[in-house]
Amino acid sequence: MVKEKKLVEAITSMDADFAQWYTDVVTKAELIDYSSVKGCMVIKPAGYAIWENIQKELDRRFKETGVENVYMPMFIPESLLQKEKDHVEGFAPEVAWVTHGGLEPLQERLCVRPTSETLFCDFYAREIESYRDLPKVYNQWCSVVRWEKTTRPFLRSREFLWQEGHTAHATAEEAEERTVQMLNLYADFCEEVLAIPVVKGRKTDKEKFAGAQSTYTIEAMMHDGKALQSGTSHNFGDGFARAFEIQFSDRNNQLQYVHQTSWGLSTRLIGGIIMVHGDDSGLVLPPRIAPVQVMVIPIQQRKEGVLEKAEEVRRSLLEAGIRVKTDDSDKSPGWKFSEQEMRGIPIRVEIGPKDIAAGQAVLVRRDTREKLAVSLDSLAAEAGKLLDTIQSDMLQRARAHRDAHTSTAHTYEEFKELIETRPGFVKMMWCADQECENRIKEDTTATSRCMPFEQEQIGDVCPVCGKKAKAMVYWGKAY
Amino acid sequence: MVKEKKLVEAITSMDADFAQWYTDVVTKAELIDYSSVKGCMVIKPAGYAIWENIQKELDRRFKETGVENVYMPMFIPESLLQKEKDHVEGFAPEVAWVTHGGLEPLQERLCVRPTSETLFCDFYAREIESYRDLPKVYNQWCSVVRWEKTTRPFLRSREFLWQEGHTAHATAEEAEERTVQMLNLYADFCEEVLAIPVVKGRKTDKEKFAGAQSTYTIEAMMHDGKALQSGTSHNFGDGFARAFEIQFSDRNNQLQYVHQTSWGLSTRLIGGIIMVHGDDSGLVLPPRIAPVQVMVIPIQQRKEGVLEKAEEVRRSLLEAGIRVKTDDSDKSPGWKFSEQEMRGIPIRVEIGPKDIAAGQAVLVRRDTREKLAVSLDSLAAEAGKLLDTIQSDMLQRARAHRDAHTSTAHTYEEFKELIETRPGFVKMMWCADQECENRIKEDTTATSRCMPFEQEQIGDVCPVCGKKAKAMVYWGKAY
Repeated sequence: MVKEKKLVEAITSMDADFAQWYTDVVTKAELIDYSSVKGCMVIKPAGYAIWENIQKELDRRFKETGVENVYMPMFIPESLLQKEKDHVEGFAPEVAWVTHGGLEPLQERLCVRPTSETLFCDFYAREIESYRDLPKVYNQWCSVVRWEKTTRPFLRSREFLWQEGHTAHATAEEAEERTVQMLNLYADFCEEVLAIPVVKGRKTDKEKFAGAQSTYTIEAMMHDGKALQSGTSHNFGDGFARAFEIQFSDRNNQLQYVHQTSWGLSTRLIGGIIMVHGDDSGLVLPPRIAPVQVMVIPIQQRKEGVLEKAEEVRRSLLEAGIRVKTDDSDKSPGWKFSEQEMRGIPIRVEIGPKDIAAGQAVLVRRDTREKLAVSLDSLAAEAGKLLDTIQSDMLQRARAHRDAHTSTAHTYEEFKELIETRPGFVKMMWCADQECENRIKEDTTATSRCMPFEQEQIGDVCPVCGKKAKAMVYWGKAY
Repeated sequence: MVKEKKLVEAITSMDADFAQWYTDVVTKAELIDYSSVKGCMVIKPAGYAIWENIQKELDRRFKETGVENVYMPMFIPESLLQKEKDHVEGFAPEVAWVTHGGLEPLQERLCVRPTSETLFCDFYAREIESYRDLPKVYNQWCSVVRWEKTTRPFLRSREFLWQEGHTAHATAEEAEERTVQMLNLYADFCEEVLAIPVVKGRKTDKEKFAGAQSTYTIEAMMHDGKALQSGTSHNFGDGFARAFEIQFSDRNNQLQYVHQTSWGLSTRLIGGIIMVHGDDSGLVLPPRIAPVQVMVIPIQQRKEGVLEKAEEVRRSLLEAGIRVKTDDSDKSPGWKFSEQEMRGIPIRVEIGPKDIAAGQAVLVRRDTREKLAVSLDSLAAEAGKLLDTIQSDMLQRARAHRDAHTSTAHTYEEFKELIETRPGFVKMMWCADQECENRIKEDTTATSRCMPFEQEQIGDVCPVCGKKAKAMVYWGKAY
């Protein structure tokens, strides 16, 4: 029973200590293990299966837009990293350096990729000659390394898994179109599959990616009101193309620089799923991403016919295309319920002798704990419908939570009070001057999350400095 | 037309220079690009799509046997790598060392994983307490690094992609069973999906994995008669468990060491596909692994109705579950044929005005170049059947080639002559003494490929030393 105890020991309540609650959930739902490699995590089966589902669904959506997958080396020679000035300034302080291969020191040290713009540029410079070679719409699934000082599982880890798309286009318009297209794809994915509503917008210059002309972002709000940058899409213009001399001859035989984009989404998003949907009993997974959607739990399973009926139920759910398992271990039903709740499995089916006699089983929703007695004949159909309901209810609840924690500030005093007393997004006008952004960060630790695509004219001036306002910005404290 | 030329320029003939032919094919079929990182390759879309198909099919087969996927850190602290003596001796000379994180030197240097036994052991030592926690049957898909001096795309690269399974069991029997099960799974996969026949057997102590008690291997024969080790499965006994103190309490509450296995298959196998099936026109892909199975090539495509009919054909093939594309670019049909052949697409469909008038199209097999006129009504069904035929013909041809290049030596003189004059496997008895193995290697550069599961009693003594023979061995020169 040692093992059981580990799983169902009470976890810290969200309201008492959200950070500790998060740590409890990632370990007790068996998503990760801390490794002997400082700042790196072991992603365990229950965690990795979520990432596999994210990959499968995103990859399908990518390919529908013409994306092709490739694989680049994991090392970047120092001279290559240094070719684009802003980029190297942004990343050099946080890369891991390989200095020896086998028993010999390397002639030039290599960093482990923190991101692969430089490698793709180096490749495109050799690969692209003519307008016929464009566009290039490549992506890779891989791990990257950033030598962070403080780390948290999924949210900030020295190594993490992600996809990084890198494209090259003949025109600035086409590059901009692809940048926005991928941001929209990310946003749709988050809402439709992860039940996480996001704010789409553009990063300020201070917050944009090192080397980008513009960075677009999707920002999600966690249960504690903090923001999580959940995916970004960058338009590089021809900046990298000039640094790496990526040119093509156009239809008039004139040499032109390509226009490039990149876009990425990472295992960080698993942290987002946990912090948007979880509760004091553990993880709550949206049905569309849950590796196991239904857990069948037999009651009084040693009584004649119970396990057989549970197996019938499992098979009927499986045949209906539902990802289902049965827990027929020798633990008590109570333990099994707690485990299923901790792991965030969207529905459990309770079935015992009394249910069987009545020709029914009980469906229990993980998200609301509502119970629903259902005839065995219609169980698979009802479970399928219930999964859809849970998925849309979860999105709606997350949206309601986000909206309830989004407020508007007309003065800087009001802003400072809101940011301290009502954790969440605060909308406020901004003059586009980095000094005001810096001041807000110093005063409150809040940062500009984005200038949303859907702008609202809250006022005419920047409440911080009184100068003319250029944009409405979402501000917030962030992970 | 620059682009076209690159693809269809004549390649070196296999018989003239097999190594150069290989290099020509991997680049002109656009599988890889040489990168600016010495010894590492860029895997381009056509190459990566083959790997994706390998992954999809293997992963499905793994999961049917209870395998769960995880992800371990890519770094191994030096002290961890050193815990198992044989293992560190085998790998330390060829690992890449990370010595700096950001701007600071590390307190302990980290190697980039060459394989992850030590990380899994470290994890299992924390994770496994009781017999209830066993077995652990985990796998990861990742890249690994080995600092090779001479490299060749896919075959020997400083970084390569692979899967590595790592399991822990309560008994020696169960570990041995899993080791053999995974070897059989690899062999079935190679034969059924890649049309590559393999010899299954056990490695000699000299050739086994660093730290293993026994290593099983599948050995394939390339077109030039050389062997390619194509997948290995290792039984570690309790050696690693003792070094890492991985113990569990059994049903009688006694502490026991676990028994472990590992097994891996890599992008190296793509080199195998090329060298088993390719010909002087380029790549020849087995239908089951081909990213594109049929290329529709319209003839006189500007004539009315041709492109429309080609599109109808494409759609009917797609609906039949065939991976199909149409080449409607402005290149000539001849160029298109050469490209389709270079890329190894199993079937092309030629369809022009005359075919349309006759209500037919022409199917051309990539492997034999046979042409088959087929009525448009039955085209999808015929193409499906033809793909099956190609798949089984390719396996049969590869098997016939392998058998024709496998010979038997009764004396050491005969052995030396065969190994020089008839490239391929030579079967010969062996005394199990490493000195004889060393002598054979010195005299001929051939190595023991394996002691096959299917033993034959060719003679009673080892022809090298005259001592009593212990096993029949497949010998050969190898990649």
